[in-house]
Amino acid sequence: MAKVLAINAGSSTLKWKLFEMPAETVVASGMIDRLGLADSVFTAKYGDGQKFKLIRDIKTHDLAATLLLEELKDLGIIDHFEEITGIGHRVVAGGEDFKDSVVITEQTLSRIEALAEYAPLHNPTQAYYIRVFQKLLPRVIQVAVFDTSLFAGMPKENYLYSIPYEYYQKFGARKYGAHGTSHRYVAARAAELLGKPLSELKLITLHLGSGASITAFNYGQAVDTSMGFTPLAGITMATRSGDIDVSLLPYLMRKLNITDMAEMIDILNHKSGLLGLSQLSPDQRDLEEAAATNKLAQQALAIFINRVVKYVGSYVATMNGLDALVFTAGSGENGIELRENIAAQLHYFGVKLDPEKNHVRGKERDISAAGARVTALLIPTNEELMIARDVMRLGHNDTAL
Amino acid sequence: MAKVLAINAGSSTLKWKLFEMPAETVVASGMIDRLGLADSVFTAKYGDGQKFKLIRDIKTHDLAATLLLEELKDLGIIDHFEEITGIGHRVVAGGEDFKDSVVITEQTLSRIEALAEYAPLHNPTQAYYIRVFQKLLPRVIQVAVFDTSLFAGMPKENYLYSIPYEYYQKFGARKYGAHGTSHRYVAARAAELLGKPLSELKLITLHLGSGASITAFNYGQAVDTSMGFTPLAGITMATRSGDIDVSLLPYLMRKLNITDMAEMIDILNHKSGLLGLSQLSPDQRDLEEAAATNKLAQQALAIFINRVVKYVGSYVATMNGLDALVFTAGSGENGIELRENIAAQLHYFGVKLDPEKNHVRGKERDISAAGARVTALLIPTNEELMIARDVMRLGHNDTAL
Repeated sequence: MAKVLAINAGSSTLKWKLFEMPAETVVASGMIDRLGLADSVFTAKYGDGQKFKLIRDIKTHDLAATLLLEELKDLGIIDHFEEITGIGHRVVAGGEDFKDSVVITEQTLSRIEALAEYAPLHNPTQAYYIRVFQKLLPRVIQVAVFDTSLFAGMPKENYLYSIPYEYYQKFGARKYGAHGTSHRYVAARAAELLGKPLSELKLITLHLGSGASITAFNYGQAVDTSMGFTPLAGITMATRSGDIDVSLLPYLMRKLNITDMAEMIDILNHKSGLLGLSQLSPDQRDLEEAAATNKLAQQALAIFINRVVKYVGSYVATMNGLDALVFTAGSGENGIELRENIAAQLHYFGVKLDPEKNHVRGKERDISAAGARVTALLIPTNEELMIARDVMRLGHNDTAL
Repeated sequence: MAKVLAINAGSSTLKWKLFEMPAETVVASGMIDRLGLADSVFTAKYGDGQKFKLIRDIKTHDLAATLLLEELKDLGIIDHFEEITGIGHRVVAGGEDFKDSVVITEQTLSRIEALAEYAPLHNPTQAYYIRVFQKLLPRVIQVAVFDTSLFAGMPKENYLYSIPYEYYQKFGARKYGAHGTSHRYVAARAAELLGKPLSELKLITLHLGSGASITAFNYGQAVDTSMGFTPLAGITMATRSGDIDVSLLPYLMRKLNITDMAEMIDILNHKSGLLGLSQLSPDQRDLEEAAATNKLAQQALAIFINRVVKYVGSYVATMNGLDALVFTAGSGENGIELRENIAAQLHYFGVKLDPEKNHVRGKERDISAAGARVTALLIPTNEELMIARDVMRLGHNDTAL
């Protein structure tokens, strides 16, 4: 048996999950929060419901990684470091080169670092963690799992923007998408639940978290996705605007007396979406609660649903059909009313939910009405498991475990 | 009988058409080109195929309007100015106030001037012409016909962007659309051809000219359109990018060493779209000719079709159905292959063309295959006639003619 560690590192957080593979059992999971600040918080869940919490200044990524490994041993989750045979890392930007997850070599790692421009807040940190674990556990295989690799091979007419073609050739200006690991996981799981190979299905997967995106899978191939060059584009999100007319940028900057474009883009990333529309909260649940008496909350929800429905329609057109619609991530998994409202506007395409089956949060199940032409599935996402699976698939091919 | 003059003024052109109303007969038409430059060109068609051309410096809008009226008399198209009982003006931006065309009063005219910010190249000129004709023909009723008024009353969830709501309230940052007069004309005509009131139909109208936009008519109401705050947004156009990830703006400016945002927006307006993608031509016909041997031309066309198909899909979703699809404007009227390629990707929605019926340019006809669930119509647009009709409807209500 192999223990595989899945690492999801941000600039001030480190989420981790330890799997027993290939059994896919979660041995332990946790996160480090407030990393780099005073009073960082290390938490772990393990065994049969045990919990551990430690508050301590964790100023560097080196310290974070060291602490994680030591606590795994101190808490008795592992006996020796050698039990960990692979580490998988979420990496945000894979550019065009990485059409799949990849085993870390000096070459692939340099390439990940070179892609920093596409994800300046993430790639450098994530690459740094890979280097730290190389030092701490030099014999362990590491695998990079990209948010974007699912989309690197989309048809050109879906990833190219209608801008001068040389901007794509010279600067890589194209649609890269995001959330690929989540879309990939739920699409694979949907195929299992439907008892058909993914290569025979037309699927649309709705990853509706605080970041939100929609992907079309046509016979096994991700052919289009709603996020763009960056995760700012696509549908309405918790605080991100999604698609807007680019002419609004100079117009609003003039009106708001903003001279720094980065400041305006920051507003579109952090003060827009549901939060900006509702003037209340970025959280779907808060808005649903308020909607009965708060018109802006109600309107923000209606706009969110509107964008989801329109993207679904555009992907039904792109694929010329639809077999199943998959809901996942925060609001996708927990938004009973939200799913119902989205489905209600898609009945022309053959989507229909069973209200009772749909009355559930975070449980994997078929929520379609009997006889619905399109199967609607609720599938909780599991990006960490997908990462662990990629470690097994790519890193452990020739290794006796 | 009344003669109504339809005026479509740009900054350096003045297109005009004189109708006999209510018969809707075209008495004469023409344009002034290179207005404000040396060697301006005045052309007119009238009578039974007569043509007139005059080259002369026409430096001001006042001179242009005067010349037009004088030539109408000199060419014997009218005997007296009094025969002209109404003038309709295309006005680009109508903001939120103008939900319909409007009779010119001092109040409405000031409001048109005040909306200059939304169409700085058009509204001031168009308002100026109204003032000039007020002086030249003080007793003639004038009507303003807006590109945007069709869309002023769209449902809020379709015209609001997911940006802070106060930007809409304070600065009018919303989707205004464009080409409204064309969409309105072909939608009305489609209803006539289908023998049903517009209020009982779900229509999608494709205005595919060098500027291009798509509108959804749900039971008589324009509910969504692809152009945005400005005509830059939406589908791929001849030289305009249509929708892009707004994050591309700072990225490309950095890469291209552009510091003036207006310069970047100008590239998106004038060097993008089919021209930018193909590196060859903004013209659909040139690209179709080149496509067999030129990969970029082929790709540009594929991207154009891709965007049209996706917008149609999103509007089928929005309306939960579709009765008819209408092609109009340059490529929509003349692009036989283009229409065929668009329809081929929409067969899941019930669109199917009859290749023989579709083998036509610029003629009004039903081009659907027998038994197709969705009727496909080719309807040459006629914005000037729509303008003349609005003059009759609004301006001549209580007037004995």
